Amino acid sequence: MTTFGPDAGTPAGRIDQVVAAIGPLDEAAVRAAREHQDRLTKPRGALGVLEEVAVRLAGISGACPPPLPVPAAVAVFAGDHGVHAQGVTPWPQEVTAQMVANFLAGGAVVNAFAAQAGASVTVVDVGVAADLPPAAGLLDHKVARGTADLSAGPAMTREQAERAVAAGIAVAEALVGDGARCLVTGDMGIANTTASAALICAFTGRDAAEATGRGTGIDDATLRRKIDVVRRGLAVNGLPDDGLPAIEVVARVGGFEHAAIAGFILGGAALRVPVILDGVISGAAALVAAALDPAVTDHCVAGHRSAEPGHGAALDHLGLRPIMDLELRLGEGTGGLLAHPTVCAAVRVLHEVATFDSAGVTEKQV
Amino acid sequence: MTTFGPDAGTPAGRIDQVVAAIGPLDEAAVRAAREHQDRLTKPRGALGVLEEVAVRLAGISGACPPPLPVPAAVAVFAGDHGVHAQGVTPWPQEVTAQMVANFLAGGAVVNAFAAQAGASVTVVDVGVAADLPPAAGLLDHKVARGTADLSAGPAMTREQAERAVAAGIAVAEALVGDGARCLVTGDMGIANTTASAALICAFTGRDAAEATGRGTGIDDATLRRKIDVVRRGLAVNGLPDDGLPAIEVVARVGGFEHAAIAGFILGGAALRVPVILDGVISGAAALVAAALDPAVTDHCVAGHRSAEPGHGAALDHLGLRPIMDLELRLGEGTGGLLAHPTVCAAVRVLHEVATFDSAGVTEKQV
Repeated sequence: MTTFGPDAGTPAGRIDQVVAAIGPLDEAAVRAAREHQDRLTKPRGALGVLEEVAVRLAGISGACPPPLPVPAAVAVFAGDHGVHAQGVTPWPQEVTAQMVANFLAGGAVVNAFAAQAGASVTVVDVGVAADLPPAAGLLDHKVARGTADLSAGPAMTREQAERAVAAGIAVAEALVGDGARCLVTGDMGIANTTASAALICAFTGRDAAEATGRGTGIDDATLRRKIDVVRRGLAVNGLPDDGLPAIEVVARVGGFEHAAIAGFILGGAALRVPVILDGVISGAAALVAAALDPAVTDHCVAGHRSAEPGHGAALDHLGLRPIMDLELRLGEGTGGLLAHPTVCAAVRVLHEVATFDSAGVTEKQV
Repeated sequence: MTTFGPDAGTPAGRIDQVVAAIGPLDEAAVRAAREHQDRLTKPRGALGVLEEVAVRLAGISGACPPPLPVPAAVAVFAGDHGVHAQGVTPWPQEVTAQMVANFLAGGAVVNAFAAQAGASVTVVDVGVAADLPPAAGLLDHKVARGTADLSAGPAMTREQAERAVAAGIAVAEALVGDGARCLVTGDMGIANTTASAALICAFTGRDAAEATGRGTGIDDATLRRKIDVVRRGLAVNGLPDDGLPAIEVVARVGGFEHAAIAGFILGGAALRVPVILDGVISGAAALVAAALDPAVTDHCVAGHRSAEPGHGAALDHLGLRPIMDLELRLGEGTGGLLAHPTVCAAVRVLHEVATFDSAGVTEKQV
């Protein structure tokens, strides 16, 4: 399935092609959804944040009511990080590959939450520092066996970053081609909250101390070291630099999963399928995607806000309000999956709820 | 089905019987759930608020893992309010009965959200000011055709309040008897945010201006009038009065649906089935239930926090943290239903996620 026309040859060409395919929300559908919502048997605005979610999905699909965003598909992009060598986490690097095996065996939280949401789980190796045996549900888009250490120089080459973004696009195409009508972002990569913090600082201008958190749960000494590592990574890579192309930013301080998730978001937006964002890794990746094409943000729903402080900064920068806010800090796509039934409920309202006229309910006296 | 033994004869006797049947959470199951959660393949605490939700459901059921809380059943308790005559809302009183018809026809938001959650919808007439024709899905527990005006004296007699509480208990029994394994509270009643505000002031000591909100969306002048009405209702009824039995408090300033929801919560707790609370009306009713038996709160999950300011005050007083926080202000059980898939997801974790040992994942280095 070549949704965007014939392959553009190079990863960079593919990215350009997809960015060119991303349009704004359909204004007529947005207007129709707003008007319809106001005729339904409920006080105007009584569904709060969900009314805008339903309107957004109408704008994405170009129809009112929009199709129910089912089935959903979560893609868990897995990669390793050279910055792990700096002691930013107490978890050994091999846990990335072990958790991939756990996802494929169905034993992780993402699998339980996907079962609850009726979503499929696809794992994508974009840069795990181990050889992964082929398995059902695993896509091999490995760019390299982990990034280089971002605190000592660029984490990857620009060409590697482009390949990772193009991999994310390809995964979005494949999942939508297989019938997914909602994409959920997910990640796995020991040390990837460090790269996320660096990306968030680079794109939002926040200080490392503001954007860096405890990730999976580190002690005070490790947090101080992690903040210092983020600060050194930004300095050695000349960031923030507002003039730098986004692809260069993610190449310098990102991870392969960040670049791939950015591509996945772009792909979903170009295919006009809503993308539910997970936590801080996805938020950092969404900053990359939005820097590549600001129109992409309108095609996203923020699934949740994680306990990681940088995530709030990313969401503020993107102008996205999260659906869930439960102090999750797990990643994998878990927070995005939790939000999926709520997004469905918001859309169902446009399909199933009666109007004041049709139900014979009296409107309030003005 | 007489779950609590033979009927106690009077509504007051029935309430005493049910309160006596409510026990604390099962400590062994709580401990087992905490310990199991810490062995699962995720960082400790990484599921935030959901870890305590899962632990609570273990304590309620007395088992680890607890059964999945499915199917859920929402009961929408409908009643009218004499205080409507004070001009606290621009909606005519007949909308209560019209919306009941809408619920029964499947055309309201509660129906759409119940479909999303796989929940049944039962409507309970506890005090609608109209004759409702019998219908499938409608239970007749009408105590009276609306309450008296709480701003001029007691809204109901103590005996009426007891009958309404007993009705809620009977509905919980019936739904659990029919197979429900999770109860969701819901309400319908034009002007019932006024009575909710009065109840919240009476139980928490908040000022009327703090606890009274815009309900379905009223203008500034109506809000000022509504606050004044709440204040007069408290004064004329001698509230707050910490020495007064809870049943007297709800009789003086509550609605039939508040009393019935309080009974529904007590019934669910006695039957050891989790109760997901909806918005401000349910929050006010939960204050009544908790005043009748403080142990009941542990059997509840706060589904959401509504836009109504009194709701936050009620949740703070109850010590409950809401799952959703999306500025909903619709009632009907909608916010409770939205939370149900998340509660299920929290429980699924205890059933389906692998342990570090079983998955061969390395734990972090301490």
